[in-house]
Amino acid sequence: MNSDFPTASGSVQWHLGPVIDALRTSRESTHNIRHQGRVRELPSRDILTAVVNGVSAALFPTHYGRPDLNDESIDYFVGDTLNVTLDRLVGQVRRALRFSPEYEDAGDAQLAERAQAITRAFAASLPGIRALLVSDVQAALAGDPAARSVAEIMLCYPGTIAILYHRLAHCLHRLGVPFLARLAADIAHSLTGIDIHPAARIGASFFIDHGTGVVIGETAVIGERVRLYQAVTLGARRFPVGDDGSLVKGAPRHPIVEDDVVIYAGATVLGRITVGAGSSIGGNVWLTHSVPPGSNVSQAQSRNT
Amino acid sequence: MNSDFPTASGSVQWHLGPVIDALRTSRESTHNIRHQGRVRELPSRDILTAVVNGVSAALFPTHYGRPDLNDESIDYFVGDTLNVTLDRLVGQVRRALRFSPEYEDAGDAQLAERAQAITRAFAASLPGIRALLVSDVQAALAGDPAARSVAEIMLCYPGTIAILYHRLAHCLHRLGVPFLARLAADIAHSLTGIDIHPAARIGASFFIDHGTGVVIGETAVIGERVRLYQAVTLGARRFPVGDDGSLVKGAPRHPIVEDDVVIYAGATVLGRITVGAGSSIGGNVWLTHSVPPGSNVSQAQSRNT
Amino acid sequence: MNSDFPTASGSVQWHLGPVIDALRTSRESTHNIRHQGRVRELPSRDILTAVVNGVSAALFPTHYGRPDLNDESIDYFVGDTLNVTLDRLVGQVRRALRFSPEYEDAGDAQLAERAQAITRAFAASLPGIRALLVSDVQAALAGDPAARSVAEIMLCYPGTIAILYHRLAHCLHRLGVPFLARLAADIAHSLTGIDIHPAARIGASFFIDHGTGVVIGETAVIGERVRLYQAVTLGARRFPVGDDGSLVKGAPRHPIVEDDVVIYAGATVLGRITVGAGSSIGGNVWLTHSVPPGSNVSQAQSRNT
Amino acid sequence: MNSDFPTASGSVQWHLGPVIDALRTSRESTHNIRHQGRVRELPSRDILTAVVNGVSAALFPTHYGRPDLNDESIDYFVGDTLNVTLDRLVGQVRRALRFSPEYEDAGDAQLAERAQAITRAFAASLPGIRALLVSDVQAALAGDPAARSVAEIMLCYPGTIAILYHRLAHCLHRLGVPFLARLAADIAHSLTGIDIHPAARIGASFFIDHGTGVVIGETAVIGERVRLYQAVTLGARRFPVGDDGSLVKGAPRHPIVEDDVVIYAGATVLGRITVGAGSSIGGNVWLTHSVPPGSNVSQAQSRNT
Amino acid sequence: MNSDFPTASGSVQWHLGPVIDALRTSRESTHNIRHQGRVRELPSRDILTAVVNGVSAALFPTHYGRPDLNDESIDYFVGDTLNVTLDRLVGQVRRALRFSPEYEDAGDAQLAERAQAITRAFAASLPGIRALLVSDVQAALAGDPAARSVAEIMLCYPGTIAILYHRLAHCLHRLGVPFLARLAADIAHSLTGIDIHPAARIGASFFIDHGTGVVIGETAVIGERVRLYQAVTLGARRFPVGDDGSLVKGAPRHPIVEDDVVIYAGATVLGRITVGAGSSIGGNVWLTHSVPPGSNVSQAQSRNT
Amino acid sequence: MNSDFPTASGSVQWHLGPVIDALRTSRESTHNIRHQGRVRELPSRDILTAVVNGVSAALFPTHYGRPDLNDESIDYFVGDTLNVTLDRLVGQVRRALRFSPEYEDAGDAQLAERAQAITRAFAASLPGIRALLVSDVQAALAGDPAARSVAEIMLCYPGTIAILYHRLAHCLHRLGVPFLARLAADIAHSLTGIDIHPAARIGASFFIDHGTGVVIGETAVIGERVRLYQAVTLGARRFPVGDDGSLVKGAPRHPIVEDDVVIYAGATVLGRITVGAGSSIGGNVWLTHSVPPGSNVSQAQSRNT
Repeated sequence: MNSDFPTASGSVQWHLGPVIDALRTSRESTHNIRHQGRVRELPSRDILTAVVNGVSAALFPTHYGRPDLNDESIDYFVGDTLNVTLDRLVGQVRRALRFSPEYEDAGDAQLAERAQAITRAFAASLPGIRALLVSDVQAALAGDPAARSVAEIMLCYPGTIAILYHRLAHCLHRLGVPFLARLAADIAHSLTGIDIHPAARIGASFFIDHGTGVVIGETAVIGERVRLYQAVTLGARRFPVGDDGSLVKGAPRHPIVEDDVVIYAGATVLGRITVGAGSSIGGNVWLTHSVPPGSNVSQAQSRNT
Repeated sequence: MNSDFPTASGSVQWHLGPVIDALRTSRESTHNIRHQGRVRELPSRDILTAVVNGVSAALFPTHYGRPDLNDESIDYFVGDTLNVTLDRLVGQVRRALRFSPEYEDAGDAQLAERAQAITRAFAASLPGIRALLVSDVQAALAGDPAARSVAEIMLCYPGTIAILYHRLAHCLHRLGVPFLARLAADIAHSLTGIDIHPAARIGASFFIDHGTGVVIGETAVIGERVRLYQAVTLGARRFPVGDDGSLVKGAPRHPIVEDDVVIYAGATVLGRITVGAGSSIGGNVWLTHSVPPGSNVSQAQSRNT
Repeated sequence: MNSDFPTASGSVQWHLGPVIDALRTSRESTHNIRHQGRVRELPSRDILTAVVNGVSAALFPTHYGRPDLNDESIDYFVGDTLNVTLDRLVGQVRRALRFSPEYEDAGDAQLAERAQAITRAFAASLPGIRALLVSDVQAALAGDPAARSVAEIMLCYPGTIAILYHRLAHCLHRLGVPFLARLAADIAHSLTGIDIHPAARIGASFFIDHGTGVVIGETAVIGERVRLYQAVTLGARRFPVGDDGSLVKGAPRHPIVEDDVVIYAGATVLGRITVGAGSSIGGNVWLTHSVPPGSNVSQAQSRNT
Repeated sequence: MNSDFPTASGSVQWHLGPVIDALRTSRESTHNIRHQGRVRELPSRDILTAVVNGVSAALFPTHYGRPDLNDESIDYFVGDTLNVTLDRLVGQVRRALRFSPEYEDAGDAQLAERAQAITRAFAASLPGIRALLVSDVQAALAGDPAARSVAEIMLCYPGTIAILYHRLAHCLHRLGVPFLARLAADIAHSLTGIDIHPAARIGASFFIDHGTGVVIGETAVIGERVRLYQAVTLGARRFPVGDDGSLVKGAPRHPIVEDDVVIYAGATVLGRITVGAGSSIGGNVWLTHSVPPGSNVSQAQSRNT
Repeated sequence: MNSDFPTASGSVQWHLGPVIDALRTSRESTHNIRHQGRVRELPSRDILTAVVNGVSAALFPTHYGRPDLNDESIDYFVGDTLNVTLDRLVGQVRRALRFSPEYEDAGDAQLAERAQAITRAFAASLPGIRALLVSDVQAALAGDPAARSVAEIMLCYPGTIAILYHRLAHCLHRLGVPFLARLAADIAHSLTGIDIHPAARIGASFFIDHGTGVVIGETAVIGERVRLYQAVTLGARRFPVGDDGSLVKGAPRHPIVEDDVVIYAGATVLGRITVGAGSSIGGNVWLTHSVPPGSNVSQAQSRNT
Repeated sequence: MNSDFPTASGSVQWHLGPVIDALRTSRESTHNIRHQGRVRELPSRDILTAVVNGVSAALFPTHYGRPDLNDESIDYFVGDTLNVTLDRLVGQVRRALRFSPEYEDAGDAQLAERAQAITRAFAASLPGIRALLVSDVQAALAGDPAARSVAEIMLCYPGTIAILYHRLAHCLHRLGVPFLARLAADIAHSLTGIDIHPAARIGASFFIDHGTGVVIGETAVIGERVRLYQAVTLGARRFPVGDDGSLVKGAPRHPIVEDDVVIYAGATVLGRITVGAGSSIGGNVWLTHSVPPGSNVSQAQSRNT
């Protein structure tokens, strides 16, 4: 299956002994990155992808489920899909919890119990998440003159994938598994080019058009009916540093975007500023101070030489 | 296969009844997004990807087909690959047509007939599409000092993938299946970070270098021998609104870029303006008015503080 | 398996004869892009992906290998994984060498010997590459206030994937297989939105945050402890043209970035300029001239209308 | 992916033209076996295998379904599995019906309607089939001194697989799709070495031990609590020939085996004879006449030379 | 993927409610076969197949392993393959132990410990098993005039597969996991038509030619250098019944076959008899009494009518 | 993916060092079965199965090919399938040739040339093989009262699979690759329970009904229109021994069965005898002497005790 250029005398001898020794030395002493010398089971990108696909299918069975569903069969499908998906999720939650300081040394039983409680809470959140996602889809249909049907928005818009992953990741983050939330966010980033930190709080009816290059930071707060275009950054201006000179993790440092704001392509909004309700931020604008509700911010013009 | 942390008493009971009920309520009444209450078969992202791969293999069998082809075997391969691919495509066309208002209520036979006619026309367009794509590849070879061979451009350039998908998507759009065209465009977007609306009209010998973040809007018109770099936007300035306040879909609102124009990285060109033939638009330029042929537009400088 | 709408009279007859003839004509005469009329075996994107995955697993078995490894089993895993991976790689190297002018007409034995020598040298470089990658991961942990563990950076950061691919691709480039290096770079580009030319030279402790839209050109030189944010371009200002008017390939035309520089999101740095050690280049800055060590460059402000 | 010994000059040219021509001639004229010159869609062995697996999982979810089921999740699983399975089955039924004389020329709608009616009737039969299969498993547990648990009989006994396939195949046969029934029987034959014609009628609590080489003919009738060992044949003695010299298809020509009979390994029972209730037929016996209830038939002894 | 004949009004509604209810009733009350009402995890046929394949590859890496191994790489392969395989096996052993009365109610920790001890003992037995299997292969090479090479016997002889599975299954049986042993035996039975109970004791240099229909019972004892042909049965004559009328499980009831015996095709040897060393039992012989060493037993002749 | 029972302290350490050492000792010295100490590439069961499937699809595209073929597309399919299949076959032939004494030490180029010549000859034989197979299918339709259509015989009869594999294997055997032929025969044996040595010569219109346990030896010769039932053996009586006491390989030692013979289930025909044309050999008959044309041989009766 692999040796695609066999020689007359058999396969190549690579004499790997020294390489393997050097890698062991690197791994165990010179460049050891193992946490406290211990191996911890890691969450799996593939399984988490399957979990998100399973949840998506359960939330929107006619769009993301199987093509043969009808009114009779749909609940069996939803129930079975959720069972499989939650069984998968609970194992990933358990693994991710080991990376939270309070569960690093927890016993197996305690860990399992916590993972089940989180997974149950996640399941209970799904109807609410579905309502938010429907509002997002409707915002897309209303906001893009090129959009023609709900199905097109569900299947062909990267912004839909990004917000779907985000709303699930945010729920996991809120429930206490930030590692898993981050992994989900990164999967969405790879699929869409849209990078939303799972801790960011985003209101209903959110729409990102095109989306490539959008970055939304950890402590950003976004209101309802907000619309973003590609390459918009809601970032930090500087990183708070503690008394000991190290970075303060988690401190508010990203913008607050109030309801009904539109931010056009390439705009960069930085720091814990507030973009007042109903404002419009023009393309490529560089904004580092708060603006009142109803503002119109646009960029200086280029010159023709 | 899934329960990776079995407990002594068997798998976890998730008590999903209330969740499933709430999801049904959400689906059927509170947040129903089903079109006219009906389930329609949806086109499949996976099958459409297979269709594009099949067409690519038929167009460029030695680059995208099988490695063992020779002058004798190549036509059998092309013929068989096209047959399989068109059989797949016709089913996707049929599904996508249901989303066009004029076929929403068409009979099965009428729908099948129309899908076959479209698929036949698509097949007949392939030699012409191949000629355009060869011009694009040659433009890349001529335009990028880092490019060393046709094979490298075929295999390693996201711009090649983007224009390949676009030329096929545009053909589908022109033939009357915009949904399928949009889906193909979104697949390319996810693979490359380049977002070209399938309705955009693009002339021969087109080259996008690097490409991440490029956005080309629905009504853009691009001439021959045009070159774009990453993060270029050919977008709309504002959206026409009809008498009733709703967005007018499909109105011309994106730029016309004439022959032999180069647009450097990060430039934003907005509105139904014309960039005259042979112009050069500098990096990060923000352009919202027409410029005559031969223009050189560049950005204001940053300052060193 | 494919005809999803069978009609009473069997599958559709597509009458492909004329299309197949036209494609043959296009392929063989009107739009022939085959190199010197010969078919050369091409490297495979899928196999190269498997090679990178194999090397990653051998370098970081507890993060990218199998979840069940322990101190006893890990060396068997590393050894077996490397053997399989190098057996795969040597075949790809052989194919890629055919695209280097000096091996275009080499005999099979000479080609095989060269491919083995390159693959051996690649294997010998792995411990050194591992040391660099560990420095990169530690730079990420230190540089991002949102990062919480090494595992999170290994699994959830696109910048980690990008630099992993780059360090392997750069090694292949240096060893004389630029085609293969380019292919690896493009795989990373598709996964992360980060586009680093494999010839670029990058020092230890390199960190790219978010990353979408980053472009680093062929002749860029980057020092140690450099940090980049999304959408940063280290590009060429113009392309040197030779006496005959054709592009001069490989000439130095991208920036030199010295140690400890930070370049914020969206900054564009163009041409063979030098960014002095310890400088900070602000977001969206457009920079086309050298700046001395310790510079602070920031953009002009937008105006609120 | 396939050419595992590439030569310097590319892949081998096989000069297949004459072979392909000769095969076409064979196919279309000299050895044409196409029914009335028409192509009919054929049932699929792979899909039918999936159907049997799906039905098995729905009948015995804890043995043939998923390992993670519990009292809450089991009905969702059964419902969803049945829906998928029946959707698959109905397509296979439709294809198989084309081979029944009365549906050879039926319209598509009529065919679809009939296929749905058969599939519905098949679904309605499942609880009854489950009861029979449970009696079979209990007979195996009682009848084999080596058997230790129901699970062992469900997972490790070829006789269990054979009777499971037979009871489903017999149901399909009875409902009017003999082709599909025959295909299911042949799948079981390949898996187990046990060859039961789907038309054979077999009572409850049936047990075949070891089983390889067992053959049960089309018109055999078997009572309750019958036990067979390997290599038992319940065959035809001669084939009835009609007035025109051709074989009369379907005429009774295989044995009737009454309740509580045991037939030991290698026994051959031929013709429309009756083996009376409670009889015991010894190993390797050759029996071509009826025997009364309670008979004990054994073979002549071998001699020691 | 499944609905291969979509109708205009969507997929078929199967009205499964009553069927699902009836199946639940059957499962939970009328035909409940669940052990003590509890669900126990079952061993997996697929995983056990993977275990046997893994062990085979570790025992004979150049025949059953990867094609690219050489003297340097082979031990890495063997070590890694064994680690993966034992990790898989230990989980199956744990599941199978639940079906042994003494572990039915064991705690998880006790069960895990016992499973590990058994798996370790299995690993320690592998070199001895390899020696036996080599003797078997050499016996085949010596005993079949049609055999031409060791490789042919390793790859093309069902008898090789059967004895390979048996020697592994017998080891598992001896170590206390009869369920798993039985499952392995049944997999071999399905692949080869050869049915050897895992408890049967078989000496070195054993060869079965052709093999279809061979049955070797639970308490059979076979010496060294024994050769069997297809359809040979080493079976029980009658089953011992205890005072309560139920079958006595495990009592000696199958033949003892001493060293250097040959038993030709179709011979049936029944009961706890002894076939003396060096005897030859002719084809189709029916033997139910012991024969002394050096016996020649043959069948009565057929007559020509 | 594999550790299905993780413990708190990570995965199990198996301490495999001594086992791996013992296996190496066994492999390299105490039980070394490697041919002359060299590793030879082995043919692959999986690839050969794919080759037989490919040839079957090319011979009978509407029965074993794709369901969507029509008169236009069928030749593309046949041509492409044959090309892929022959490319695969030639690699397997080359590997198998290494096991023929005359090519054991051949140079790579000589081996490749011979493998291509054999593969070409195989391709040229296909139309003739198709004609024979059609005669076999027609014999089945005529000979089995339960058979209803050609399609049923093509899809549901193990005898069809067995003769299909045999006719291809026999061709490979005749062309000088007995190892590959033997491997194909063993695949068929595993699928059907029918064991035909590839060297056996079998005339047109051959039919095996049921088939489990049929064995046809290496030097058997079978005429036209012969019909066999399950468990028939055409075997050797004794093995010729040379002057040195070793088995003489390949000497004629199996029966000659003339035209129009029927041999019923379980009959054993042994030695280089001739069964005269038109004879009927009854079930379970034991025959070791020649019988003249038109004979009727039947077994002695069992007795009823």
